[in-house]
Amino acid sequence: MRASRYLIATQKETPADAEIISHQLMLRAGMIRKLAAGLYTWLPMGLRTLRKVERIVREEMDKSGAQEVLMPAVQPAELWEESGRWTQYGGELLRMKDRHGRDFCFGPTHEEVITDLIRNEISSYKELPANFYQVQTKFRDERRPRFGVMRAREFLMKDAYSFHLNAESLNETYELMHRTYCAIFDRFGLDYRAVQADSGAIGGSASHEFHVLASSGEDDIVFSTGSDYAANIEKAEAVAPSGTRPAPAEEMKEVATPDQKTIEAVSQLLGIDATRTVKTLLVKAEADEDGNSGLVALVLRGDHTLNEIKAENLAGVAEPLTMATDEEIEQAVGCKPGSIGPVNLNVPVIVDRSAAHLADFVCGANREGFHLTGVNWERDAALERVEDLRNVVEGDPSPDGKGTLEIRRGIEVGHIFKLGNKYSTAMNATVLDENGKTVIMDMGCYGLGVSRVVAAAIEQNHDENGIIWPDAIAPFQVAIVTLNAHKSPTVAEAGEKLYEQLRQAGYDVLLDDRKERPGVKFADMELIGIPHRFVVSERGLAAGTLEYKGRKDAEKQDVPVAEALPFLVNASPRKGL
Amino acid sequence: MRASRYLIATQKETPADAEIISHQLMLRAGMIRKLAAGLYTWLPMGLRTLRKVERIVREEMDKSGAQEVLMPAVQPAELWEESGRWTQYGGELLRMKDRHGRDFCFGPTHEEVITDLIRNEISSYKELPANFYQVQTKFRDERRPRFGVMRAREFLMKDAYSFHLNAESLNETYELMHRTYCAIFDRFGLDYRAVQADSGAIGGSASHEFHVLASSGEDDIVFSTGSDYAANIEKAEAVAPSGTRPAPAEEMKEVATPDQKTIEAVSQLLGIDATRTVKTLLVKAEADEDGNSGLVALVLRGDHTLNEIKAENLAGVAEPLTMATDEEIEQAVGCKPGSIGPVNLNVPVIVDRSAAHLADFVCGANREGFHLTGVNWERDAALERVEDLRNVVEGDPSPDGKGTLEIRRGIEVGHIFKLGNKYSTAMNATVLDENGKTVIMDMGCYGLGVSRVVAAAIEQNHDENGIIWPDAIAPFQVAIVTLNAHKSPTVAEAGEKLYEQLRQAGYDVLLDDRKERPGVKFADMELIGIPHRFVVSERGLAAGTLEYKGRKDAEKQDVPVAEALPFLVNASPRKGL
Repeated sequence: MRASRYLIATQKETPADAEIISHQLMLRAGMIRKLAAGLYTWLPMGLRTLRKVERIVREEMDKSGAQEVLMPAVQPAELWEESGRWTQYGGELLRMKDRHGRDFCFGPTHEEVITDLIRNEISSYKELPANFYQVQTKFRDERRPRFGVMRAREFLMKDAYSFHLNAESLNETYELMHRTYCAIFDRFGLDYRAVQADSGAIGGSASHEFHVLASSGEDDIVFSTGSDYAANIEKAEAVAPSGTRPAPAEEMKEVATPDQKTIEAVSQLLGIDATRTVKTLLVKAEADEDGNSGLVALVLRGDHTLNEIKAENLAGVAEPLTMATDEEIEQAVGCKPGSIGPVNLNVPVIVDRSAAHLADFVCGANREGFHLTGVNWERDAALERVEDLRNVVEGDPSPDGKGTLEIRRGIEVGHIFKLGNKYSTAMNATVLDENGKTVIMDMGCYGLGVSRVVAAAIEQNHDENGIIWPDAIAPFQVAIVTLNAHKSPTVAEAGEKLYEQLRQAGYDVLLDDRKERPGVKFADMELIGIPHRFVVSERGLAAGTLEYKGRKDAEKQDVPVAEALPFLVNASPRKGL
Repeated sequence: MRASRYLIATQKETPADAEIISHQLMLRAGMIRKLAAGLYTWLPMGLRTLRKVERIVREEMDKSGAQEVLMPAVQPAELWEESGRWTQYGGELLRMKDRHGRDFCFGPTHEEVITDLIRNEISSYKELPANFYQVQTKFRDERRPRFGVMRAREFLMKDAYSFHLNAESLNETYELMHRTYCAIFDRFGLDYRAVQADSGAIGGSASHEFHVLASSGEDDIVFSTGSDYAANIEKAEAVAPSGTRPAPAEEMKEVATPDQKTIEAVSQLLGIDATRTVKTLLVKAEADEDGNSGLVALVLRGDHTLNEIKAENLAGVAEPLTMATDEEIEQAVGCKPGSIGPVNLNVPVIVDRSAAHLADFVCGANREGFHLTGVNWERDAALERVEDLRNVVEGDPSPDGKGTLEIRRGIEVGHIFKLGNKYSTAMNATVLDENGKTVIMDMGCYGLGVSRVVAAAIEQNHDENGIIWPDAIAPFQVAIVTLNAHKSPTVAEAGEKLYEQLRQAGYDVLLDDRKERPGVKFADMELIGIPHRFVVSERGLAAGTLEYKGRKDAEKQDVPVAEALPFLVNASPRKGL
């Protein structure tokens, strides 16, 4: 591609409303433009990367034996009513009426549509397993769309859905998809992790998320130093401390802690470590048959944080997790939130494993301005229910018993689920098995955020000058920058010759033949993040050389003109996609 | 691809609600499935063809220098208000509100979005001309969606928009797009015509439609036998008859024509040819400044038909063309529609060129149950305004003076427009010219119905057994049908070997390895329409041969196993896309 005939829409200024680096760089490098909140146009430069991501996904999905289909974006309400999600799905579902007043939505996902298709098309176990995917435009009406294409309302997604006679077959395809996702992310050239995850609202028995590691990521992901264990912090188990709980050594005493409302303040006042305290949170209990719901107390060690997903997955706790209001707490306990404790508390108490291991600890006295010290379980407070309630922290033992845990930040770009029969039961998707018996199919689903991968790749790979693309998903692999070519036919000719040579060798090349100052061209090519750059100048040609600089390199180097192609092949063995 | 691992969703029965052959065959061949009215899922078999169409379009657009972008499907109302189309566009615009109550639509076209983008991105004549395209999902909320993907509500379209400093540059790109479209349709392998067309509601000064010829087409397209002239009948000029009008020879007389309401009935009663009669149609006139509108009379030769597009494009005639109701006619003229005529008519009269050339003709007497004979223009009825009002008929002289006209049926699959400055003026899309002066850009737009091409190709290419794909857009180019391979390892092996050989030579091959009866397999491959078929059987292998049949061939032929590839290369030189 010749830059003089291409929309190079770079910008020097950092756009004011772009909060994260990938959003800033995608705007500055001329990859996207905002049309409205959460709606982006992909400019030519950005679309090239998007298409490369899409192509890698498609090739690996095809290789796995999945069959590509294309379902409509607009979906009839009837199917969502069948699955129950027309009412369950919240404000993110963009609903609309057609000219005849019938209800439709802009599909945020396609479980209902594919299940409807397959229940009509597949009737025998002989046609199973089968896995169908699409690369398609989705819409989620985010309340507060931001971060550019990272959390856009309209986005490009690869979604796949597999159908099975039994759980064993689902497991096999699930493992195949896990391997396929690894192959896809390997080809992207990104540093990623597959982690165990909570299945959430979509349902099902197991799921893994694929995260691109980046310090700006919104998710904490947890690894073991001693094994392959990896999980989203939402899901990572905090194992019980080893050994038995120490025996009580102190008497329980009430101490005044006026105006000390936080764990830190109380610890400091009493001169003890936060690890010797507990905090007690009151949340809504699951409603009873009559729809009435009381409160439940969750007790954690003072230095630990509540894992809301673990809490709301517990029997007896309302889902979604809902903190009690100050009024509800005062009414139930008779004090403010900062003074609650498990001793003589008149609501059911669930104690975290680590908190349950404490002896002689400090907690609120259920009396405004007072705490208790020297508290001991069983002696002073009942210990009826112990659960895993907290987020793991660095240094915790790995749940598989091998090594300790480390935590890094990740951006979720893929999520694979064993759905089981949630949708197939609701929509009566059956086949006949070997014995002619009607069986509900098992299902898996496998999402990958195609447009989000582009942003995540930038979050992981950039410096102060711009984007640093991995070769496989760079808009162009190679930039050829000619200096003052409009004044020097020698430079122009050498540039054209190199351009043709590299293109014919299969590289995706951008020839920067614009009549711009060298500094502008260099800055643009660095901002856009093209992995390899050759500079063609009169001075270099006089010496028979081109200047080469890899986007990650600190130093430039001279390469003899005749050596340019073999040099590049060596630097970037992966040729044009 | 192995058929045993692929969704071959063929059906024997013709679906009851599929009216046209392409819709029937796309359902029967397992290419698409209906989700709701005008919404279709593309099954794997159909999507393969759709993607090949898309790829050819993309390659040729890229070759033309157009730059690919991707704009959102969901568009904010504000831009449509700027162009004036938020209110002008009728029920086909699918409108919706997001969770914050803001107005959006599912874009049926992208003039507003691209004009908004380019007015922000391009500021200098130096960046012009520029042409941007996308292959994207559109939605038009058809009142009565039907004919499968031929007139679906959600569909895939290639739309391109070009921007220019002046009309000369627009003309150049328009011509380039014309050539590019010809290259695209040539590569599809379809019989098509580019014809002059009316620009319609989208506006602009000139346009051409690209039609796939098919007897089932909805449009009449007109060609000259003696030149390149080709036009949609909407646009084809009916030239005035040569020579001067004959002098009057008869006296005007009123004759009773009781209950004779049609031209045929009156002609028969009076024993004259319909070519000697005129018919007079009353339509709404353009509203005056106060919004009042009267009627206008349109007079045509009795055997001719009104061209509504020509009529509504005339000054003084309301657009869209609106026929007067029986009540309005009775009130204005005092008789029913069947008895109107131009003599002493108290509304303005516009006479078609051919009707204006008549002498001694018959027309309604503006009196119920009576006609006039021997009527002559100027002597009996004023001839104040003569226009081209009628549809051309076969045998009419070509408007370019070379040859006569023929008419064929076509399916519109592409439309290119010189938009001029309609949108750029409304949205103030300007650049600075060489002199630093602000200039409104000229625009062109270029649409191609990607999903519609698939249906049109089938309308043109099918027989009683199914689809007959041109090689370039066939879902698979070659089918290998193995007979009883599950019982014969020799057949299975030979099938696999041929499969690998043809694939490695670049062909898109479907190996029909299903455990089905030969008749079922043959019928499926013919229904799906794969252009080339090899049959591998024990009997053939014993003689060292395969059986070959081209989809269009009447006869099968034996081909030595070793000759299969060169035979195929000869039959289908175009290799895998």
